[in-house]
Amino acid sequence: MASNTSTPIRIGIVGYGNLGRGVEAAIRKNPDMKLTGIYTRRDPSRVEALDPATRVLTMESLLDHKGQIDVLVLCGGSKDDLPRQAPELAAHFNVVDSFDTHARIPEHFAKVDAAARAGETTALISAGWDPGMFSINRVMGEALLPDGATYTFWGHGLSQGHSDAIRRVPGVAGGVQYTVPVPEAVEKVRSGLRPELSTREKHTRECFVVLEAGADADAVRQAIVNMPHYFDQYDTTVTFITAEELKRDHGAMPHGGFVIRSGNTSDDSKQVIEYRLQLDSNPEFTAAVLVAYARAVHRMHQLGQHGCKTVFDVAPGMLSPKSPEELRSALL
Amino acid sequence: MASNTSTPIRIGIVGYGNLGRGVEAAIRKNPDMKLTGIYTRRDPSRVEALDPATRVLTMESLLDHKGQIDVLVLCGGSKDDLPRQAPELAAHFNVVDSFDTHARIPEHFAKVDAAARAGETTALISAGWDPGMFSINRVMGEALLPDGATYTFWGHGLSQGHSDAIRRVPGVAGGVQYTVPVPEAVEKVRSGLRPELSTREKHTRECFVVLEAGADADAVRQAIVNMPHYFDQYDTTVTFITAEELKRDHGAMPHGGFVIRSGNTSDDSKQVIEYRLQLDSNPEFTAAVLVAYARAVHRMHQLGQHGCKTVFDVAPGMLSPKSPEELRSALL
Repeated sequence: MASNTSTPIRIGIVGYGNLGRGVEAAIRKNPDMKLTGIYTRRDPSRVEALDPATRVLTMESLLDHKGQIDVLVLCGGSKDDLPRQAPELAAHFNVVDSFDTHARIPEHFAKVDAAARAGETTALISAGWDPGMFSINRVMGEALLPDGATYTFWGHGLSQGHSDAIRRVPGVAGGVQYTVPVPEAVEKVRSGLRPELSTREKHTRECFVVLEAGADADAVRQAIVNMPHYFDQYDTTVTFITAEELKRDHGAMPHGGFVIRSGNTSDDSKQVIEYRLQLDSNPEFTAAVLVAYARAVHRMHQLGQHGCKTVFDVAPGMLSPKSPEELRSALL
Repeated sequence: MASNTSTPIRIGIVGYGNLGRGVEAAIRKNPDMKLTGIYTRRDPSRVEALDPATRVLTMESLLDHKGQIDVLVLCGGSKDDLPRQAPELAAHFNVVDSFDTHARIPEHFAKVDAAARAGETTALISAGWDPGMFSINRVMGEALLPDGATYTFWGHGLSQGHSDAIRRVPGVAGGVQYTVPVPEAVEKVRSGLRPELSTREKHTRECFVVLEAGADADAVRQAIVNMPHYFDQYDTTVTFITAEELKRDHGAMPHGGFVIRSGNTSDDSKQVIEYRLQLDSNPEFTAAVLVAYARAVHRMHQLGQHGCKTVFDVAPGMLSPKSPEELRSALL
């Protein structure tokens, strides 16, 4: 039985920034799903959804809708929103989030797991592309080629954290930062030679900066390229542009990258597995992943699989609206 | 608890050609596994294993070793061996196979499933890279980008079926065929434009042929390039070489290819997911996949999950020797 012939999966969106808008767009592409509403901390009358018919509601009303929502997709930030919201909401709802502070995942998992077990709900954390699709490819690459090395490259893409760092430099009125994989490094990895690569050899950083009136361009450039952790370990270029150019040419949020596993199955045989993403919109793709995992969470909950999960716990078939029979005959 | 600190998983190999040798090589790379023996229909004294210490045994002795083997990896062919062996052996053992006749997968699944349910064993069919890794990427690509198109390219690689077809042409003493993806087609797909591509536009076929003494080169070339189904829908090149060149330059079995999913998350945003394999040895990589899935089969059996499975039913974490905690903290 394919789920798209049965009752649609009812999805609620919590938080409505770029990611929340991406989830609204993704649900439109999945006929087996239905958006029940957007929940926001803002005044709902001031939130404009992609579809004017979408209900925008207050966070305070969320608990009243328990039983009317199959899965909540949490679209807040990893720094302040998700660490608090995910455990709180997992006590009452099935939830999916994109928590991406790698170092704090075990702690986040433990809290969400406790809440979900107590509430007999199903939660899935850290979905998206990294963590998410890239993580799956790191695990599978290592499992298939245990004698090998894994390389992750990011970009060509806009880095939010590094763009924020640029904007904090005195004299900067605006700016964006792109992370760019070094083509020679990617080719060396693809050759199967398992090179050792320094941070500087793997990525370059390209900054496009709008100066405040009267700012010293050279001082700004030096402050950026020497910024500890963010830029000092990289070859960084700084290009000064106008506010108009920033708006016209740098409004999109492209991203992507590669996970490459290179290994030997015997002395003579090198094998290379590469997973690559080229994304016009980072938040829309992340949202698409969240929505596919919301389908899996709904099914796992129906199977009585409570507690916190990650992408490592979800079989590929659970992501598809097609039945196991259809998948075996059409896509295997 | 990581499995590599506990009792090794005991693997038996059924059939010892290129794939069986690959499985023996793969088990050496996985410290949580142990090869208990190779089972062959040939005279065991005439089978030379990679490791002289490996036990080579008769197929007749296999049932006597029930209880001493955790998973059998079936390394026979899809045409004659696996349709018979997989259901027979799944009645008594956990098994993994690489059954790759796409059109007959549902029938094979049904037989193996019935046998495994009756025997309370766990079986997994059609593991490898296509079917296998490529299938997973087809399903996940479609689930993440429902508004999109999937493209599979094979090669650069040696095709066994097409090489066999060449060798049946009168006047041919030997030969090999390589399938080569057309670079322009791959680039067009990577651009996210979702082109419609004919068979001829996607792949070319390159044949290297040794003529029998006195054979008519032009007649052989015509017989090959016009061969229905195998070559007539492709641009095919035929290069005549000597028997020495065939042996020296064409003894390896490289293969690989691409699965590319290209789709839109909104009108403005194209997203492209690419999975690529570059394999020095097709049978050794297929074997590496079988062995990782043997680990998953062993675990699913320990969890009481009986019956027939495919790669669509296996969560990524089940393939890894690492514990869920280790995976979350190190690879998510």
